[in-house]
Amino acid sequence: MADKTMKLVLVRHGESEWNLKNLFTGWTDVDLTDTGRAEATAGGRALKEQGYDFDVCYTSMLKRAIHTLDIILDQMDRAWLPVHKSWCLNERHYGALQGLNKADAAAEHGEDQVLIWRRSFDVRPPALEPGDERDPHVQEQFRDVNPDNLPLAECLADTIDRAWPYFQHTIAPQLERGRRVLIAAHGNSLRALVMKIEGLSPDEILKVNIPTGVPLSYTFDKDWNILDKHYIGDPDTIKRKIDAVANQGKAK
Amino acid sequence: MADKTMKLVLVRHGESEWNLKNLFTGWTDVDLTDTGRAEATAGGRALKEQGYDFDVCYTSMLKRAIHTLDIILDQMDRAWLPVHKSWCLNERHYGALQGLNKADAAAEHGEDQVLIWRRSFDVRPPALEPGDERDPHVQEQFRDVNPDNLPLAECLADTIDRAWPYFQHTIAPQLERGRRVLIAAHGNSLRALVMKIEGLSPDEILKVNIPTGVPLSYTFDKDWNILDKHYIGDPDTIKRKIDAVANQGKAK
Repeated sequence: MADKTMKLVLVRHGESEWNLKNLFTGWTDVDLTDTGRAEATAGGRALKEQGYDFDVCYTSMLKRAIHTLDIILDQMDRAWLPVHKSWCLNERHYGALQGLNKADAAAEHGEDQVLIWRRSFDVRPPALEPGDERDPHVQEQFRDVNPDNLPLAECLADTIDRAWPYFQHTIAPQLERGRRVLIAAHGNSLRALVMKIEGLSPDEILKVNIPTGVPLSYTFDKDWNILDKHYIGDPDTIKRKIDAVANQGKAK
Repeated sequence: MADKTMKLVLVRHGESEWNLKNLFTGWTDVDLTDTGRAEATAGGRALKEQGYDFDVCYTSMLKRAIHTLDIILDQMDRAWLPVHKSWCLNERHYGALQGLNKADAAAEHGEDQVLIWRRSFDVRPPALEPGDERDPHVQEQFRDVNPDNLPLAECLADTIDRAWPYFQHTIAPQLERGRRVLIAAHGNSLRALVMKIEGLSPDEILKVNIPTGVPLSYTFDKDWNILDKHYIGDPDTIKRKIDAVANQGKAK
């Protein structure tokens, strides 16, 4: 083809039922709220209005990301596109913190310790006991995944160690063949991809907060140099969302 | 594994926007109505209540079947299952009749002729002109399909000629590996599969009318002998639906 650039769009799912309750979610398979569905609808509409199209889509095995993708594809009248679901794009696994609210976690482990788990690149939260009902080794949902690969808790470095190889081995070859790719996933699995794609340091990636439901478009040349990077949608909404994420970081 | 049987469930999408208007639909990509969504919800609930589970799912590239599958998987809390979409499971292509209502088609071509197109096994309806907006060769939706395989009109025999090889080459090996398969598709693409699976004659298959939204469960031994075949759901509802389909046939 004449156009040798590669086109990738990332989108982070919108508000989930547990965002609303301020619980550590991780791999807990909670659904979108009405607000989350509206965010996905707006993202899909923006992609359509700006003439975006895709050849293949990827998402996690968690319904808040799958439903985000489904809603976007419906908005684009592209329900017929191929969709691949992989645990490698799941959110960071929060181990034994999953299901705790942030106040309870602070009461149990101390506020400073919880901050370290949330903010550090390579310190894991406490692991689940094997066999815990939150242990992916005993969950139906991950019965087809090699158990050796499933975590009991992850730091961001662990999330990168499974999301990035999946991108390299499965998604990158599609882009290199000229196929336009859409990925709907989670705050930390998308951070993993952004860190590697942009060549950021651990300190740099920890400061990156991708706003929810706002598609992030990358254009690469054939050597993976970034020719263009921009968010897609109404500029005021995007600015408000980025500010909200930044302020959330400060408040905590 | 100890259990050497193979498990397959077929489900036909429920009411679509064009069923309601009594138009020839074929490959026209119309969505489910609220009634159609409720039929899919009931089908998914029945599968869950009776303890069904699946390993892999197949559907067409038409949103009324894709959405039926999505709704069923949500009811079963199985949104994470792999789903493969293929044009080979699309409804029979109704050629130049697509978009006509049944009265207009009778006025244009004569009632007897329309009956022949609807009821015969191997008489094709009038073909689309190449380049017609209904021609799949010019539709975005089928841009990744080999154009040599795309139809301008199909009789039931033509639908069988693409649905059955897809089943044999893609779906049957999954069943033979012990994977439980769910297929959400259309009246005629499912007829194609049922005819071949059950070894029916053309006359016999033309009398088979699969009710909408009611999962049809098959269990085979390893040589593809049928050990069990039954519809899944509330018996009164199933009987009412089967009678409705039979009476619809008589009235026309």
